[in-house]
Amino acid sequence: MKRPPVVILTETDLRSLVPLDLAVIDSIEAAFAALATKSVAMPPILRLDIPEHRGEVDVKTAYVPGIEHFAIKISPGFFGNPALGLPSTNGMMVVLSARTGLVEALLLDNGYLTDVRTAAAGAVAARHLARPDARIAAILGAGMQAEMQLRAAALVRPLAEARIWARDPARAAALAARLDLGFPIRASATVSEATAGADLIVTTTPATAPILRRSDVPAGAHVTAMGSDAEHKHEIDPTLVAAAHYVADRLSQTRVLGELHHAIAAGAARAAQMFPEIGQIIAGQAEGRTGAGQITLADLTGTGIQDTAIAALALTRARAAGAGQVFNA
Amino acid sequence: MKRPPVVILTETDLRSLVPLDLAVIDSIEAAFAALATKSVAMPPILRLDIPEHRGEVDVKTAYVPGIEHFAIKISPGFFGNPALGLPSTNGMMVVLSARTGLVEALLLDNGYLTDVRTAAAGAVAARHLARPDARIAAILGAGMQAEMQLRAAALVRPLAEARIWARDPARAAALAARLDLGFPIRASATVSEATAGADLIVTTTPATAPILRRSDVPAGAHVTAMGSDAEHKHEIDPTLVAAAHYVADRLSQTRVLGELHHAIAAGAARAAQMFPEIGQIIAGQAEGRTGAGQITLADLTGTGIQDTAIAALALTRARAAGAGQVFNA
Repeated sequence: MKRPPVVILTETDLRSLVPLDLAVIDSIEAAFAALATKSVAMPPILRLDIPEHRGEVDVKTAYVPGIEHFAIKISPGFFGNPALGLPSTNGMMVVLSARTGLVEALLLDNGYLTDVRTAAAGAVAARHLARPDARIAAILGAGMQAEMQLRAAALVRPLAEARIWARDPARAAALAARLDLGFPIRASATVSEATAGADLIVTTTPATAPILRRSDVPAGAHVTAMGSDAEHKHEIDPTLVAAAHYVADRLSQTRVLGELHHAIAAGAARAAQMFPEIGQIIAGQAEGRTGAGQITLADLTGTGIQDTAIAALALTRARAAGAGQVFNA
Repeated sequence: MKRPPVVILTETDLRSLVPLDLAVIDSIEAAFAALATKSVAMPPILRLDIPEHRGEVDVKTAYVPGIEHFAIKISPGFFGNPALGLPSTNGMMVVLSARTGLVEALLLDNGYLTDVRTAAAGAVAARHLARPDARIAAILGAGMQAEMQLRAAALVRPLAEARIWARDPARAAALAARLDLGFPIRASATVSEATAGADLIVTTTPATAPILRRSDVPAGAHVTAMGSDAEHKHEIDPTLVAAAHYVADRLSQTRVLGELHHAIAAGAARAAQMFPEIGQIIAGQAEGRTGAGQITLADLTGTGIQDTAIAALALTRARAAGAGQVFNA
């Protein structure tokens, strides 16, 4: 057997090969199901801090039985970069064969695939927890994920209206004006204005103190909190966590990094309390929404299985399209 | 500031750019000194196991203040590969800017740089612990590192004779016949025949039970144990660890993975016992060899700072030579 060549794909290649579409959402859904049903290997995140340059790097990986490849994702965040005219977050993925450990692809995506798989997880949560007739979406935040979460939700629910709130009203207005998804999208002046009557609420901010209170959430709404991927991030009031049907992407991780972690700290949840994971709901091992009036909450902190799933999909599509440049290393 | 291009270097490029030479040894020495004198960040190894395919992957990294880049090294070991005609160990390094976190180079070395930086650490140990007049080397093992450790030692000590022992005498004979370093090299039938009168002994085997006993080591000899990079590997009799002037590459690591770990388990050393690290000796913070009759022992388990040092050197040389292919990701 010959050592396989290494395929190199740039961000431009990957944007064209892996747009946010239903197939991506399905592959992320399947990976979450595998997390509940198969012996997935997902070691703790490797974290390197370089305080001298306000930098941090996370390395994530996961092996999902049934997927022929696994990804090792490198995600740097260097918070002095904007002053240099560079983006603060970047990164790439290395894709290896799960059978031989040989490197088969390098995805120089500058974080694009992370944006897509994060949005896709939001869609998976909406598909399994939001009411099937969810029409009105409220998005808190006006960054890249605000847009992508709304696009993702529109793929799985019959949205007919969206509202965008952000701390900076000008950014919310600009995003609302720019987006065209075939239904009205407007900026809201307050969180409660955005969420009044909403069926689906997605929080996408870097907030470090709660922005969404229990009283902001209508009966029957589903909330996806995807801004909390680090200990200090916090978007959801602990009383809302306690009141909702709470679902984690990975419980061992949301207890430490997610909204659940803040609810535990506030005494609104117990550290040992068991909650379902989204994969268990997909696999039929745990209950999702049990009634039209229930409030559901998905706490998404990001997992290595999502990286492995989207990287494997990218490589499959690249090979089918003959895309990328090939190296014989 | 523009996003810098990514340089891609293949194993062929890297073999030509980074041969085992004194400059490599000096860069590894400087990295060990930094480990003792600067606030190096070296997180625990990320490890992914895929037992289904007899595979394991280690990811190592370290930031060394003063080096402008840091490496993230991916080292897979898949033990069913030889049956497929593929090498069991492979890997690559991703080189990032320590200032911006941007990916600047991909070193598709298939493990070559690891071989070189491992051999270079052996030379650093020999330079600081073997007698300056060390003439006779004994190498236990006949694999890639057996050859490279001997080549590395010959760069820092006035070797005039070498003996090679291996469990498989044919492999020892073949290596002895093939190597030409300007002095006699012969195969030995037993460990004690190889080490009789030796000034420098290097163990490079995958042994899981001691192959080198206290009585095999002449007074005044230096021993480098570099085969033990995992819990189950074990080359040195615990009584030899206890009798020698023991030096670790990284004490927190040799207590868990190295020969020290087995000596502690055997009761020949205490878990909390303090031993010098090679970097402290280089930096003048701890004593190296204190007499011509002393037995010294360096326990090398491999560290991320070595990867960062050799990756940074490779990138500097590649840029100076205009080597590699450049991608605008």
